[in-house]
Amino acid sequence: MDTVKTPFGQRKHMLGGSAAHFSMSARLFTDVHLVAIVGRDFPQKYVDFLDRKGIILTSLIKTEGRTFKWQGQYEGDLNTALTVNTELGVLTAFKPRVSAAQKNIKHLFLANVDPDIQRHLLSHMRSPRLVGLDSMNFWIKHKRGALIRLLKDVDVYVANDQEARDLSAEHNLIRAAKMLRSLGPRIILIKKGEHGVILYSDEFIFSLPAYPTDKVIDPTGAGDTFAGGFMGYLACARTINRASLKKAVAYGTIAASFNVEDFGLEKTNRLTRKDLETRLTLFKKIISL
Amino acid sequence: MDTVKTPFGQRKHMLGGSAAHFSMSARLFTDVHLVAIVGRDFPQKYVDFLDRKGIILTSLIKTEGRTFKWQGQYEGDLNTALTVNTELGVLTAFKPRVSAAQKNIKHLFLANVDPDIQRHLLSHMRSPRLVGLDSMNFWIKHKRGALIRLLKDVDVYVANDQEARDLSAEHNLIRAAKMLRSLGPRIILIKKGEHGVILYSDEFIFSLPAYPTDKVIDPTGAGDTFAGGFMGYLACARTINRASLKKAVAYGTIAASFNVEDFGLEKTNRLTRKDLETRLTLFKKIISL
Repeated sequence: MDTVKTPFGQRKHMLGGSAAHFSMSARLFTDVHLVAIVGRDFPQKYVDFLDRKGIILTSLIKTEGRTFKWQGQYEGDLNTALTVNTELGVLTAFKPRVSAAQKNIKHLFLANVDPDIQRHLLSHMRSPRLVGLDSMNFWIKHKRGALIRLLKDVDVYVANDQEARDLSAEHNLIRAAKMLRSLGPRIILIKKGEHGVILYSDEFIFSLPAYPTDKVIDPTGAGDTFAGGFMGYLACARTINRASLKKAVAYGTIAASFNVEDFGLEKTNRLTRKDLETRLTLFKKIISL
Repeated sequence: MDTVKTPFGQRKHMLGGSAAHFSMSARLFTDVHLVAIVGRDFPQKYVDFLDRKGIILTSLIKTEGRTFKWQGQYEGDLNTALTVNTELGVLTAFKPRVSAAQKNIKHLFLANVDPDIQRHLLSHMRSPRLVGLDSMNFWIKHKRGALIRLLKDVDVYVANDQEARDLSAEHNLIRAAKMLRSLGPRIILIKKGEHGVILYSDEFIFSLPAYPTDKVIDPTGAGDTFAGGFMGYLACARTINRASLKKAVAYGTIAASFNVEDFGLEKTNRLTRKDLETRLTLFKKIISL
C-alpha cells in the first residue's frame, strides 16, 4: 500500500506495489497470475478490485501481520521519488508458493523484492520461456552477491539508469548494459524515466524516447507498468525476436505513459487495449524519422 | 579557447567556442560564414585551420585584447560541465559586423553570447529565411528581458533541458516547450544531452533519443555541433516542413555523436558527410519501431 504526495495532491494507503502495477498493465495482453503476500490490514476491496480486473489471485497469500507499505513524495520535476518511510511487514517472511498448474506458466516476472525471495519463486517454475527481473538499489547494495547469482538464470533484466550504473559500476549506459549482459541476462532494459528506455542485447540496441506528455501526476509504478506491458506483449508473441522485442518496449512505454497521468492505479484502472493502440499510433508519428 | 579536463585526459587552450563547433558541423552541409571576435593571443594556426576547413572568415575580427577563454571539467557521467573559469576578454566589446554581401545570407544562427550582441547581428540581416538562437543560463538570469524580446524575432530556439526549465519556469519539458513557443519561436528544440532531443512546434512534436555510444571523451560543444547539423541541413532543404525538420534533428544528433568522441574539434576535424550518412543509417535501425 502506497502513501504518495506529489505537487498535484496526495493519497493515503492506495493499492500499489510492483506486483499490482505490473499486473494491471500485463492484464491488457494476457492472463496474469499474481504471486504476492499481504497482511490482515489489507482491505478486501483491493482484493476485489484486482479480481474484477481479471487478475488471477490463486497465489496471493493473506497472513498475520501488516501489509508492506511505502510512503514517498515527489517534488519539482517528478523524476526522483523521495522515500519517507518503508514498512516491510509480512514481506520479510514471504515464501512465494504457486499451484501445481502455475508451475507450468511460461512467462515469469520477478518484481522488485529480496533476491532470495525471487530465487525461491523461480525455483518452483518448470521450464519458463522468458524470465524477467527487476530489482532496486537496496538489494544492489545489501544483497549484491545473491542478485548477481540470480541474474545468471534470468533472460531480461529491467533496471533504471541509476540502478544500472550502481550494479555495473559504469557511468556510460551502453557500457553499463554491456557489463550487465555479461552477468547473464540476454536482454538488458535500462529505463530512464521521462527520457525513455534502451534495450541492449548482443544482436541489437534499441533506443526509444518516452511518450511526450505534459500530464504527469504521479510516476509511482511507471517502471512496473512498463515491465507489465513489455512482458505481457511478449507472452502473446509467437517468437521473441528483434521485431517483437521492439514492439514490447513500445507497448511498455505507452502503458507507463498512462500510468503517470493519475495517482496509483487510477488511470490504468480504466485503461483498455484500444487506448494503448490509439496512443501507440500517435507515438509512432512522434518518433518516426 | 577551451581548457578542458575529463576523466579521459585534458587539453589546454584548444580551439573551441560555440561558433567554431557550430561551423565545423554546418560546413558538412553548406558554406558557413563565421561572425566572431578574437584577441591578439589567438593563434594564427587556429585561423588557418578554420580556413582550411572551408569556413568563410570575412567577418572574424581580430582585435586588441585577449580571446574569450573557458575552462571547465567533467566528472563521472560526463553530463554536466563544471565551469572552473571564464575570461570574457574581447567578447565584452564585440560589435558583430558583416559584409554587404553577407547581409543577404538566408540562414542565421545566433550562437550563445549576450542577447544584445545577438540582436546587433540580427539587425544587420536583410531578410533571413530561418533564424536560430542559442543562449545559456547566465543570460537567462542576467539579461532575461533582452533575451525574451529577442525571441520574438527568432524562428528556432535551441535550449538544453535546464535552460528550458529556467526560462519557462516549468519543470515538465512539454509544458516548458509550450511556454517558450508562446514567446515567439515557432520551433523549440530542447536538447537533453545523452537523452536526445525534443522538437516542439504547433503542428507536431518530434522526440529523438541520442545515438547510443559508449565512447564519450569530451562533450564540450555537442550542443553547438547539434545546432550546426540542424541548421546546416535546413539551409539546403528546399522546404522547411515536418519531414525536413525531423531530418535536420537527426543530422544534428549524428553530428553531435561524433563530436563527443574526442576532445574539442579533434573528431569533427576528420568528419565527412559520408561518415554522417553511414551512422545515420545505423541510427535509423536503432530507433525504428
